[in-house]
Amino acid sequence: MKLLDMYAKLKGDITQIEKELERSVTFEHKLLSEASLHLLKAGGKRLRPVFVLLAGKFGRYNLEVMKKIAVPLELIHMASLVHDDVIDDAATRRGQPTVKAKWDNRVAMYTGDYIFGRALVIATELGNPQIHQVLSKAIVQMGIGEMEQIRYFFNTDQTLRHYLLRIRRKTALLIAVSCQLGAIAADADRETANRLYEYGYNVGMAFQIRDDLLDLFGTEKQIGKPPGSDIRQGNITLPVILALQDEANRERLLVEIARIREHNGNVDTREAIELIKNSKGIHVAEQLAAKYVEKALAALKELPSLPAKKNLSDIAHFVGKRNY
Amino acid sequence: MKLLDMYAKLKGDITQIEKELERSVTFEHKLLSEASLHLLKAGGKRLRPVFVLLAGKFGRYNLEVMKKIAVPLELIHMASLVHDDVIDDAATRRGQPTVKAKWDNRVAMYTGDYIFGRALVIATELGNPQIHQVLSKAIVQMGIGEMEQIRYFFNTDQTLRHYLLRIRRKTALLIAVSCQLGAIAADADRETANRLYEYGYNVGMAFQIRDDLLDLFGTEKQIGKPPGSDIRQGNITLPVILALQDEANRERLLVEIARIREHNGNVDTREAIELIKNSKGIHVAEQLAAKYVEKALAALKELPSLPAKKNLSDIAHFVGKRNY
Repeated sequence: MKLLDMYAKLKGDITQIEKELERSVTFEHKLLSEASLHLLKAGGKRLRPVFVLLAGKFGRYNLEVMKKIAVPLELIHMASLVHDDVIDDAATRRGQPTVKAKWDNRVAMYTGDYIFGRALVIATELGNPQIHQVLSKAIVQMGIGEMEQIRYFFNTDQTLRHYLLRIRRKTALLIAVSCQLGAIAADADRETANRLYEYGYNVGMAFQIRDDLLDLFGTEKQIGKPPGSDIRQGNITLPVILALQDEANRERLLVEIARIREHNGNVDTREAIELIKNSKGIHVAEQLAAKYVEKALAALKELPSLPAKKNLSDIAHFVGKRNY
Repeated sequence: MKLLDMYAKLKGDITQIEKELERSVTFEHKLLSEASLHLLKAGGKRLRPVFVLLAGKFGRYNLEVMKKIAVPLELIHMASLVHDDVIDDAATRRGQPTVKAKWDNRVAMYTGDYIFGRALVIATELGNPQIHQVLSKAIVQMGIGEMEQIRYFFNTDQTLRHYLLRIRRKTALLIAVSCQLGAIAADADRETANRLYEYGYNVGMAFQIRDDLLDLFGTEKQIGKPPGSDIRQGNITLPVILALQDEANRERLLVEIARIREHNGNVDTREAIELIKNSKGIHVAEQLAAKYVEKALAALKELPSLPAKKNLSDIAHFVGKRNY
């Protein structure tokens, strides 16, 4: 089952969000619009808007209001992706050429800045200072997370704690905030908003761990880019950290990582991936993802039994499912 | 007379802003703090905070409130500078190594993102949605201005209108907004805020025209980098556009610009600067700057006769003064 099937009931609203996303970046400037639309059309699961809409169901759901949260959250996510592509020297994302590949680094950087700005303009139309505050703080934390990621490139001494703190900032926080702000914009009570934040945070952690496993063990078709792109770029993710703790593989894996680094990632990573695959690490990573899924489900428990609760629970289960 | 002498009366408050600026970027993350502080310590005229404080004098001036406008505006300016340095491949700014030169492009990009985020977090503490809206819109317009600048690099067919629209977005708008938000944060009435916006916009236009003249005709000591850096990078500013309209120089100047472009700016620009200097363009550029100064002064006219009015008028005169 695809994730999208799960929120089939939201389809009409998601289509509206999609239109609004296009509209939000299609004006004022030709090149910026083209680059933004290119990024938008490359797809994506629109996970953050979905969380916003589902969270909104726990309050007074009004699509016009929800749009002004859902669109900025997807735009902030997109802006961070386009800046990551500058950094990562990525040629493709989701099987499509990146903005930096199709235009150049300068266009990619300013497109990111522009999309960040547009996101804030839309969110501020709601006139709710709490929403602006939460969004601004999330942007700061995401920036720190991104910086941490490049600072720890090829660092084979990093611990589980480094990794968790980084994905918390880089991924989990924005998903948590999507759930929280969806609830706040719909005037849900504070406790509901906090529970949804908790749910989003834990789903986000599980999601990133799964994504990092998929990057190593998925197929090119599944992930839209060749497997092993994280390790090629020096991004030492959970399965790698755990495999390095496995004495049976540690030395050989260190040699492989050093070789990848030496060749700036332009090298076959099959041996490294095989070593990681055969370590005890994968099992531990999967357990950790499952633990976060459980926590996400626990956070939903006290919420009223709406269809949206079932959807959120389905998404958590889906994220927890092995997909490689 | 130096600009700083003019606002000697604000000195205590400016010192406070300076401390707050440091504090605002000095936490959470070592590398981001170091890069941000490096940028901050490289100096700058703190023109935007000064405008915020002076505008605040037309309402109920409270330094704690003014800080939360003055600091974000300087931070947004700084963030745009650090992103410009990535684009411009600049090695120094104000005589100091740039963040991208001292660290690298990736650090510079994320430092910019982080500083943008911090600026918004501080501004949102005031809880005034209008302020967030104005700031977000200014960020979008600045992004468009920056993009326009790189898009018109080495474009010798651009018109005066292209140039004016670009510096409006790139420079004048943020100065206008500094004046406007200083007034709004101090609860000045709407008409006062609008007049101050008008003043700031016109001073900002004059300031950028002067800055572009200075880049060509100033000394390295004055501008903290070798003269002609705009033209070397392909930034065709007002004096160049006007010189190109002067038939006596046009052909020779086009040859020089083509030569600069061909060598990616790594070439002597004295001949080009001499041609621009000898064209009728300089005089026209100076007249245009003077016209904006006049408009700025006119916008002040109906404001109450406070010492701050005199300061703003002095700043406008200062900006209008030939300094090369």
